[in-house]
Amino acid sequence: MGIKILKEGGVTAPKGFLAGSAMAGVKTPDRYDLTIVYSSAPASSAAVFTTNIVKAAPVLVSQANLAADKGRGRAVVFNSGCANACTGDRGMSDASQMARAAAEALGCAGEDVLVASTGVIGAYLPMDKVLAGIKSAAAAMDEAGGGTAARAIMTTDTIPKEIAVEAEVGGATITIGAMAKGSGMIHPNMATLLAMVTTDCAIEAGLLREALLEACDATFNMVTVDGDTSTNDSLFVLANGQAGNPVIEKNTDPGYVGFVEGLTHVCRHLARLIAIDGEGATKFIEMNVEGAKTRKDARLAAKAVVGSSLVKAAIYGKDANWGRVLCAMGYSGADFDPDAVDLYIGDVQMMDKGKALVFDEAAALVWLEKDEIPILAKLNGGEANATAWGCDLTHDYVTINGSYRS
Amino acid sequence: MGIKILKEGGVTAPKGFLAGSAMAGVKTPDRYDLTIVYSSAPASSAAVFTTNIVKAAPVLVSQANLAADKGRGRAVVFNSGCANACTGDRGMSDASQMARAAAEALGCAGEDVLVASTGVIGAYLPMDKVLAGIKSAAAAMDEAGGGTAARAIMTTDTIPKEIAVEAEVGGATITIGAMAKGSGMIHPNMATLLAMVTTDCAIEAGLLREALLEACDATFNMVTVDGDTSTNDSLFVLANGQAGNPVIEKNTDPGYVGFVEGLTHVCRHLARLIAIDGEGATKFIEMNVEGAKTRKDARLAAKAVVGSSLVKAAIYGKDANWGRVLCAMGYSGADFDPDAVDLYIGDVQMMDKGKALVFDEAAALVWLEKDEIPILAKLNGGEANATAWGCDLTHDYVTINGSYRS
Repeated sequence: MGIKILKEGGVTAPKGFLAGSAMAGVKTPDRYDLTIVYSSAPASSAAVFTTNIVKAAPVLVSQANLAADKGRGRAVVFNSGCANACTGDRGMSDASQMARAAAEALGCAGEDVLVASTGVIGAYLPMDKVLAGIKSAAAAMDEAGGGTAARAIMTTDTIPKEIAVEAEVGGATITIGAMAKGSGMIHPNMATLLAMVTTDCAIEAGLLREALLEACDATFNMVTVDGDTSTNDSLFVLANGQAGNPVIEKNTDPGYVGFVEGLTHVCRHLARLIAIDGEGATKFIEMNVEGAKTRKDARLAAKAVVGSSLVKAAIYGKDANWGRVLCAMGYSGADFDPDAVDLYIGDVQMMDKGKALVFDEAAALVWLEKDEIPILAKLNGGEANATAWGCDLTHDYVTINGSYRS
Repeated sequence: MGIKILKEGGVTAPKGFLAGSAMAGVKTPDRYDLTIVYSSAPASSAAVFTTNIVKAAPVLVSQANLAADKGRGRAVVFNSGCANACTGDRGMSDASQMARAAAEALGCAGEDVLVASTGVIGAYLPMDKVLAGIKSAAAAMDEAGGGTAARAIMTTDTIPKEIAVEAEVGGATITIGAMAKGSGMIHPNMATLLAMVTTDCAIEAGLLREALLEACDATFNMVTVDGDTSTNDSLFVLANGQAGNPVIEKNTDPGYVGFVEGLTHVCRHLARLIAIDGEGATKFIEMNVEGAKTRKDARLAAKAVVGSSLVKAAIYGKDANWGRVLCAMGYSGADFDPDAVDLYIGDVQMMDKGKALVFDEAAALVWLEKDEIPILAKLNGGEANATAWGCDLTHDYVTINGSYRS
């Protein structure tokens, strides 16, 4: 059966989900910068957060509410323009207040609401604007609000990132919608800044979390823009069961595999978009590692390549400097035999069993002129594979990040 | 007593050391690109090499010769313009031949000679040119050859890097000279590409290695330019005992501490120069971490900050975006309490016990306009300190590394 990609709709595509957005003026006026995604029915909830030990206040508040609510939830409130990170007690109080204000406006309990913020670190939220924005957003709640929601969470992103798919689960058609913002400060784990998945699939909360971790591991955790793991990374999922499928309660239940497949599809799509829209990026890099001893080795090697400043700068310069690819795998911590490696950019082989080949530079340039650059390393040491995504390092990345605060 | 910095002289400053250089034309004509540093007397030797599992042929040959020679050595032969990495059996044979040819020209055994190459990965050495160059370099051997040697190992470096100091060791004055090349593909461990230390101090080889590791750990292992650990990193030391001090045989011997102090001084000087001369760099960053629980935590935190693309781009843009500093420490793996951190750029405090301060942007800008930017984080969690060095991420870095091969 597989996955059917819907032409329209993001987080509001599944049954029973609404989104409302507001121009709160958190950092700049006249742009959507606050949004609430809401399930009209109680939902199972799960989330993955940044591994940075410096966690922004909204991350800490969301973790607390998620624990208090024992895997149930109704809504997530997002703002862009200010990360509410490194803001001490006042930041915690502000994040809690965001959740409570949204709960009040929506008529649910405070712990039913999760919170996410993105933007500059170390600034306080302008709470008067935020609270007014929450009221407007709640009043603007709409079944077609997903597109605007995806815009409201953007910071340096140049394109909104959303997707919706249908999958067959236990004889019923379920829908999964999602949105994300990324761009800079993107690195595993977990590399998204902010993302939200909604689904009308019926699934028990613990299993929803298991499915989310599995999907995230193969997608958001395999994308890097600049190697910086943010203080605010949050990936949320709400599953409200409105599709009417038999509740998935065990990972052996029919439908679980299909659900994970659908979930992974939307996460992969967004992770790739984050790399494509990496700050200043002109090229998307897909690094495939095949034949590693273990999955861990394959993942380490693939991630090191897309994380290497030298590889990224070479791709920007359309330079087939494959030595940097091997070098990055070499310091990645992956266990492999350098003398067994075959290396390709596109279909042009540059290394054969660890030895440099004389290759056709013109043929390589054809690949390097493309917007998407596939690189393949066959380690010839086992059966494990992994794919990681990244982008080139450009003059614009430096320009954007040399003047972000101002 | 302390260290006396000599006004002139690098690797040929200590007694009994000579250097000869040649324009071999490895990559481009009319520049010194091959050099031999030679001790006229037998010397203790030690070295530290890249931790990258992809090791260039000269690294493997040097490791083998060092082992075969049981800590004795006479010379190191260097070339720039070609790294002789990812070159398979032919590369190994070429590197061995370099050592043998130098030994023959100098009249010593093949295993007395260590080899180092730097430049593009995946290209073969033009051995006819290299062998001719070795003959000319050996014929040009001179007690004042250190300065030219430091130039011959440069690649994208814009300044030669050398130093010489005197220290009191066991009642005698000993001299330590050194040179290095760095610039890009610089990251712990160990962050130098190529460096060589010469000294006329008399010290047993095992202890020389112990001293080298101690000095390297606090200096070359604390500098990063771009996070890429090269395939060729090599730090050599030869100690020929010509200063006439009593041979240092134990780390409790008088003089050991003074020797390590001198060795650390020259290594720190070169490590800082490597960051100052980082590819495309306009600013030098010194990150000081104080009050960590352990030395490991302090080192992890300090290195993550100078390794963060976002911190580096902010410094380039003279943006006091201190949140990125805290964020980098947060994902570094260091164990600390974010709510206890005080943060300063220069003498301007930006965070007090984890809370953002309203600070004087104009005062911060005075610091950010400087060529050297000191950042200080007090973790207030213990007694351990560390310092790491790096440079800003600039448009020129991207330009240089987008077209290195061509």
